[in-house]
Amino acid sequence: MSNEKSRFKQLCQQAQETSYLTSTLALLEWDQQTKLPALADDYRSDQITFLAGEIHKRQTDPRLGDLLDELADSKLAADKSSDTGATIRELKREFDKRSKIPATLVQELAKATSVGQTMWVHARRNNNFGSFSPQLKKIFELKKAEAESLGFEGCPYDALLDEYEPGAKTHEVAAVLDALRSDLVPLVAEIAASGYSPPVEILRRQFPIELQQVFGREASTKIGFDYGRGRLDVTPHPFCTELGPNDCRITTRYDEYFFNSSFFGILHESGHGIYEQGLRSEFYGLPPGKYCSLGIHESQSRLWENLVGRSISFWQYFYPRAQELFPAALQDVPLNDFFQAINHVSPSLIRVEADEATYNLHIIIRFELEQAIINGELDTDDLPMAWNEKYEQYLGIAPSTDAEGVLQDVHWSAGLVGYFSTYSLGNLYASQFFEAARDELGDLDSMFRDGDFVPFKQWLNEKIHRLGQCYSGPELGHRVTGQGLSHQLLLRQLRDKLSPIYGL
Amino acid sequence: MSNEKSRFKQLCQQAQETSYLTSTLALLEWDQQTKLPALADDYRSDQITFLAGEIHKRQTDPRLGDLLDELADSKLAADKSSDTGATIRELKREFDKRSKIPATLVQELAKATSVGQTMWVHARRNNNFGSFSPQLKKIFELKKAEAESLGFEGCPYDALLDEYEPGAKTHEVAAVLDALRSDLVPLVAEIAASGYSPPVEILRRQFPIELQQVFGREASTKIGFDYGRGRLDVTPHPFCTELGPNDCRITTRYDEYFFNSSFFGILHESGHGIYEQGLRSEFYGLPPGKYCSLGIHESQSRLWENLVGRSISFWQYFYPRAQELFPAALQDVPLNDFFQAINHVSPSLIRVEADEATYNLHIIIRFELEQAIINGELDTDDLPMAWNEKYEQYLGIAPSTDAEGVLQDVHWSAGLVGYFSTYSLGNLYASQFFEAARDELGDLDSMFRDGDFVPFKQWLNEKIHRLGQCYSGPELGHRVTGQGLSHQLLLRQLRDKLSPIYGL
Repeated sequence: MSNEKSRFKQLCQQAQETSYLTSTLALLEWDQQTKLPALADDYRSDQITFLAGEIHKRQTDPRLGDLLDELADSKLAADKSSDTGATIRELKREFDKRSKIPATLVQELAKATSVGQTMWVHARRNNNFGSFSPQLKKIFELKKAEAESLGFEGCPYDALLDEYEPGAKTHEVAAVLDALRSDLVPLVAEIAASGYSPPVEILRRQFPIELQQVFGREASTKIGFDYGRGRLDVTPHPFCTELGPNDCRITTRYDEYFFNSSFFGILHESGHGIYEQGLRSEFYGLPPGKYCSLGIHESQSRLWENLVGRSISFWQYFYPRAQELFPAALQDVPLNDFFQAINHVSPSLIRVEADEATYNLHIIIRFELEQAIINGELDTDDLPMAWNEKYEQYLGIAPSTDAEGVLQDVHWSAGLVGYFSTYSLGNLYASQFFEAARDELGDLDSMFRDGDFVPFKQWLNEKIHRLGQCYSGPELGHRVTGQGLSHQLLLRQLRDKLSPIYGL
Repeated sequence: MSNEKSRFKQLCQQAQETSYLTSTLALLEWDQQTKLPALADDYRSDQITFLAGEIHKRQTDPRLGDLLDELADSKLAADKSSDTGATIRELKREFDKRSKIPATLVQELAKATSVGQTMWVHARRNNNFGSFSPQLKKIFELKKAEAESLGFEGCPYDALLDEYEPGAKTHEVAAVLDALRSDLVPLVAEIAASGYSPPVEILRRQFPIELQQVFGREASTKIGFDYGRGRLDVTPHPFCTELGPNDCRITTRYDEYFFNSSFFGILHESGHGIYEQGLRSEFYGLPPGKYCSLGIHESQSRLWENLVGRSISFWQYFYPRAQELFPAALQDVPLNDFFQAINHVSPSLIRVEADEATYNLHIIIRFELEQAIINGELDTDDLPMAWNEKYEQYLGIAPSTDAEGVLQDVHWSAGLVGYFSTYSLGNLYASQFFEAARDELGDLDSMFRDGDFVPFKQWLNEKIHRLGQCYSGPELGHRVTGQGLSHQLLLRQLRDKLSPIYGL
């Protein structure tokens, strides 16, 4: 074995050993959310902190840096999209990033966000933004310092965005989201003006939880989530996590009197899970076996939740089974009424309860506001006013309290600045991927009507999942769709589906 | 702070940090048994191996050895039963033990037992002891080498016993178990000769699993297992594990057509759990906060399972509730019939299904056989014959196949030699502790009849649990009972309960 190859092998072993610890940490966290006894939380937090520290030591080990410097200059790194090249490139990118942020800043951020989340909980409960604003200002200041440490070419926000969506640039994302907003606002207004409202009350009938479990499991299995390599559990806040190459766990919450909550939640998390299960397990713990970016990850969940799961063809297949499982609720409901109900669009105040169309406006508001703060154009004290103005302007409604306004999300208090836009990037990528799949695979609707989700899932496996981090999000988007990021398809898909419902 | 005290603080921190990792390892194992997706097992094994290696590195770090040498000579170690003295003494004992076994032997044993367990599974399935015997011989040879590395004063078996029951000596344990055997064999024969058989078929009626869950949870809560600091899950092989100072998890298995399986299993594991929950959490990860020995641990499970859970007073309190939950099975069954049925004694071939009295004979057989092998008096090839002879001699029955004979237990294939006797030590300690509690607390039966298990549990907390490893098993036994290990009380308790049932 050449010296380079032996050094590369050493690098992979180091990374894979670290992944034994990161996947163990993920188990500690999954267990904390799902199974931990009520009084065991403090010790679990200590365990997590200790293990995170051990992982950080490994990830910033100067010997790792030397190895990466050496390999980055070798011919193994030449083809940056090859498995080998991507491994060196991405491990080096992460190492450099971690090494750039001073340890003191890491500690200050950890402390400020820990305090921040507790203060946020209280502020939301007491509807008192003022009690939280100084801490939020501090967190944003630290995030600015983090951006400065990381460095950037364009604006400081680029550095923050890059943590979640490597390779994405603020001005490009902003251009697309601006265009999306310009077209979404009139669409939503048009729908409101139509005066029509689908029979949404049918979704609020009684759906026994055990049968929701059966149905959710059946549907997720059918679309391709592999329960031999995963689990489904119950948590207040649904999520998807992976604890190993064959261990992807999703969660949901059940509401006996609301069909959407668990069903579309399970489709959403299954989409994340199918992505994780589609990564090449032989590269587990290495960049070619890791998800590309948060935006790409979100595209996979949105594809199954909205573009597949809210399509008429999906329900042409699944609705008879739904009526069989929930006769009391659905026997008297025609398919078309059900289809209209699950596609109802209406401005609302809470992001996580928003429909497919207005959801993006919630995101755009947050994306605009956090940029304004980072750029120094907006003071955190003025956030509630700016928030309410934007809701009025884009959605035509404004929160009457900060609890259902600017205090609704945990993200900023946790230091997640630059994160929100990845939700809308997910919707945009989803729409473009879906169109590309249709172009290549033909009549997807007819397949879905027959309950055949395999060709579409395999297409995703091959075009997206198997590539891991060999390409950045923007590169992957271009590779799969032949185009750059654009809002046109998302708009067209929404209009195509919603026009007949609302008679637009 | 004096130099000694600061060094001691350093020692405690090292040990407590290690316990973050050992408790994390315990979670990886618990999850493997209870929640792991079917195809995730290989990676989980790799995770466990890696983490165990990291823990071993910490536990054999020469700097730890230096620290322990220094502290062992300090005045902090002078009172060896104080929390501080016990911490130094026990950490040093463990460090020395780990350092004595050569790394090559550790690896050989790990490999031989890993292979051994797989071969054992096949041998048991195919009822083919011959295919397993050479590997078993190898494992015993390695255990002999381990005993030599560890060193001993009396016989090599002492070194192996000491791993599970520190401070116990083979000749002492053998003397008590010999005496126990001499008295048990005639008792069991007398029972058989009585010709009477309790109505055991009532325990094989239908007991709906959901109601077994309710009843098991109620009873375990009542005797003192704290579900705010623990959980109950389902596994094929029941166990108890602790994942932190407030996180003790027990498991059980349900058989819809056999009452005993889950109910007494839950009492048994709750007994282990109540011990873990009774340790002082401020010493978590340190010897004063760790269980004393396997024998003492087992005594706690046997106390609740047998001495409390199979007593008439326990059922005077619980039987009405049992009849309420299982009317179809128990409505027509008088308490006394039920009491007789759960105390049925009858020789059987399988240890884990044995009753309270004959169980010890199963243990004594294994204890005698493994000593004979370690002493070179018995070749593994001749084990089946020796096994069957002893079953004939002590229990009056002999297995017709090795699968239900010498191949029934996993222990030896896993390298657990010296372990079995701790089960009977548990029964012996339980009988002596129970008598001591009765002497000090008065009429326990009357308390149990009233459903008041608190005084007895608190007595165990105070006399046993809170002492952790401040005393060895033999020391603790003496301290609590004022006597050495003896079989007299166990025999008397059995006779007192069984004589009226069988008219002895």
